[in-house]
Amino acid sequence: MTRDAIEVVYRVRAAAADIDVRIEALLLEQTVELPRSALRTAFVRENVVGRVVAIEPLEADDYRVTLAQPRAATADDPAQLLNVLFGNCSLQPDVELEDVRLPRALAAVLGGPRFGIAGLRRLLGVHGRAVTASVLKPIGLSVGETAALCRTLALSGLDLVKDDHGLADHSFSPYAERVAACLEAIRDAAQRTGRRTLYVPNLIGTPATVLHQACQARELGVEAVMVSPMLIGLPTLNQLARETGMAVLAHPAFGGSLRISPVALLGRLFPLFGADAVIYPSFGGRFSYGPDVCAAVAGALRAPSAPIAPAFPVPAGGMRVENMPAVLDFYGPDTVLLIGGSLLDAPGEAALLERSGQFVAAVHSHRPR
Amino acid sequence: MTRDAIEVVYRVRAAAADIDVRIEALLLEQTVELPRSALRTAFVRENVVGRVVAIEPLEADDYRVTLAQPRAATADDPAQLLNVLFGNCSLQPDVELEDVRLPRALAAVLGGPRFGIAGLRRLLGVHGRAVTASVLKPIGLSVGETAALCRTLALSGLDLVKDDHGLADHSFSPYAERVAACLEAIRDAAQRTGRRTLYVPNLIGTPATVLHQACQARELGVEAVMVSPMLIGLPTLNQLARETGMAVLAHPAFGGSLRISPVALLGRLFPLFGADAVIYPSFGGRFSYGPDVCAAVAGALRAPSAPIAPAFPVPAGGMRVENMPAVLDFYGPDTVLLIGGSLLDAPGEAALLERSGQFVAAVHSHRPR
Repeated sequence: MTRDAIEVVYRVRAAAADIDVRIEALLLEQTVELPRSALRTAFVRENVVGRVVAIEPLEADDYRVTLAQPRAATADDPAQLLNVLFGNCSLQPDVELEDVRLPRALAAVLGGPRFGIAGLRRLLGVHGRAVTASVLKPIGLSVGETAALCRTLALSGLDLVKDDHGLADHSFSPYAERVAACLEAIRDAAQRTGRRTLYVPNLIGTPATVLHQACQARELGVEAVMVSPMLIGLPTLNQLARETGMAVLAHPAFGGSLRISPVALLGRLFPLFGADAVIYPSFGGRFSYGPDVCAAVAGALRAPSAPIAPAFPVPAGGMRVENMPAVLDFYGPDTVLLIGGSLLDAPGEAALLERSGQFVAAVHSHRPR
Repeated sequence: MTRDAIEVVYRVRAAAADIDVRIEALLLEQTVELPRSALRTAFVRENVVGRVVAIEPLEADDYRVTLAQPRAATADDPAQLLNVLFGNCSLQPDVELEDVRLPRALAAVLGGPRFGIAGLRRLLGVHGRAVTASVLKPIGLSVGETAALCRTLALSGLDLVKDDHGLADHSFSPYAERVAACLEAIRDAAQRTGRRTLYVPNLIGTPATVLHQACQARELGVEAVMVSPMLIGLPTLNQLARETGMAVLAHPAFGGSLRISPVALLGRLFPLFGADAVIYPSFGGRFSYGPDVCAAVAGALRAPSAPIAPAFPVPAGGMRVENMPAVLDFYGPDTVLLIGGSLLDAPGEAALLERSGQFVAAVHSHRPR
């Protein structure tokens, strides 16, 4: 099974005297879910039970454990893959999922980003510098107010404007009407500026709703959409990415508190399941990831293993225009910079246009140190 | 907004001097995601921003906080509801979701269990005592081996036999073939025993796969299915429950490590989204919930607010035949008792038939203390 093994890396808390027993239990829990004594079939023992690759002591009672699990156990299914990685052991607080390495053939089945950094740069027409992005919020704006905000942000020269992840098919802002109005606002702004902004609507709901919204978006001319994979389900993201023909931006809502490291969830699983760009809370804002975690997530997104395409890191969550030079020095050009509140706090349309224009200018004029 | 408010209960860790600011930030984060100063529209301030209902100090720097969020913010959408409850704040480790109370009209839209305890008892033909259940595992068995195991468990008199949650459309055990063979095994056993066992196959994959498997199951005569809502996505559970016409058993895989209390996730959200019976790890096994948590989850499932129907608690995860009297005294008759490994560890078919029969007898003969 070696060639087709999935390497899964966990942090496991256990006393030194118990670690071997604990790891044997973890290995079996994630596939056969039975003690070895109950495995009466040679096929099961040889093809479904994995093996321990490495046990690395870190601190007292803290280990990094690498298991090799057979691809056959996953049935090449995206949901069953999650089961093998972190299904039952998510219920055991002494285990954290730290990293995942898939065999090339299984990664190819899932497919990864269809557009990735290169395809999104083609859509955006932006090369050699970071991408500027903002957001249409708060929820509660009417269609007209949302489209007016979209137009102002596009006029300021932003590369990408996305829906807030809480924008659903609200009665005060019906989905299809809002998407059509925002596309019109983008086209209107492009006639004035000569540059087209990419508008990215949010898809949210049951699979039937998400897929219907995706169809409506495509018919209206949308080229990229956003979803929150942990809200709609990672397998729903995978189906969408396989079927939609549009680029997919992923939002981390509902996913932050899993005992899965940000690198494993946002840096590996989100792109593996098809996200072309992944939003995550950057350091210094109102969320909890430090610079090391943010750099590791960005690194994992940009440098996946073959055959998965590189995806854009999208740091967000409390970033400010004033900090752009430092942020750009930290993240480099293969980055989508997403600023929401710090722009939308501007008092009125003229102030918003000016502040958003400062953001655009800061990114366009930045030269790497 | 009071009549249509969603009451959301959090545990929040903050210093006393900071708690008011922290709660204001939490209140806004979950809907408008902007500071109040950036809310320029009266409609937004009046219809989308919620309010603080109660702040209860518990221990030092630990508070129970109840917010009222407007139903309008959710668009009556299952995924957007999760967003309002725990979307962005899942990324903030000082917050835990403790409980949820929905307005009756919103609960009615989601629908809750379609069968619930009463409907499942009708399907099972079991009244006045706890329900006995076991599981077909490990993955890796062939279709013939799985069906043989199913037949043995049915012959022992079990009420319900379910697939392992890791059974997907594996090449060594194709889904439709396996389901047909297990139904045949159940029917064969019923001819001998005069009692029909309910066979519950596992659905897993992308929405397209899950819905296709549900169709195949229904055509074959299946009356109840199992899913892992956190793997496939809670909104996918909701669509399935609304459309399928079959009872739905929910498995907690991939859901245990969220910073959402077991009562909120398994006891409230799983049934709200449509689960008729919810599997969870019982105390004393290889998982982490204590008796208090297990009793609270069972209580929440059995006693929901109107119009949601009561759902079966399904304690599992390392329960043993020997402990049945104590387990029954603890959980009472409105319970599905699920024993896997402790039965399947039996050395051979005759031993399994005997041990499973002891489980059945222990439950049938039990008289409440």
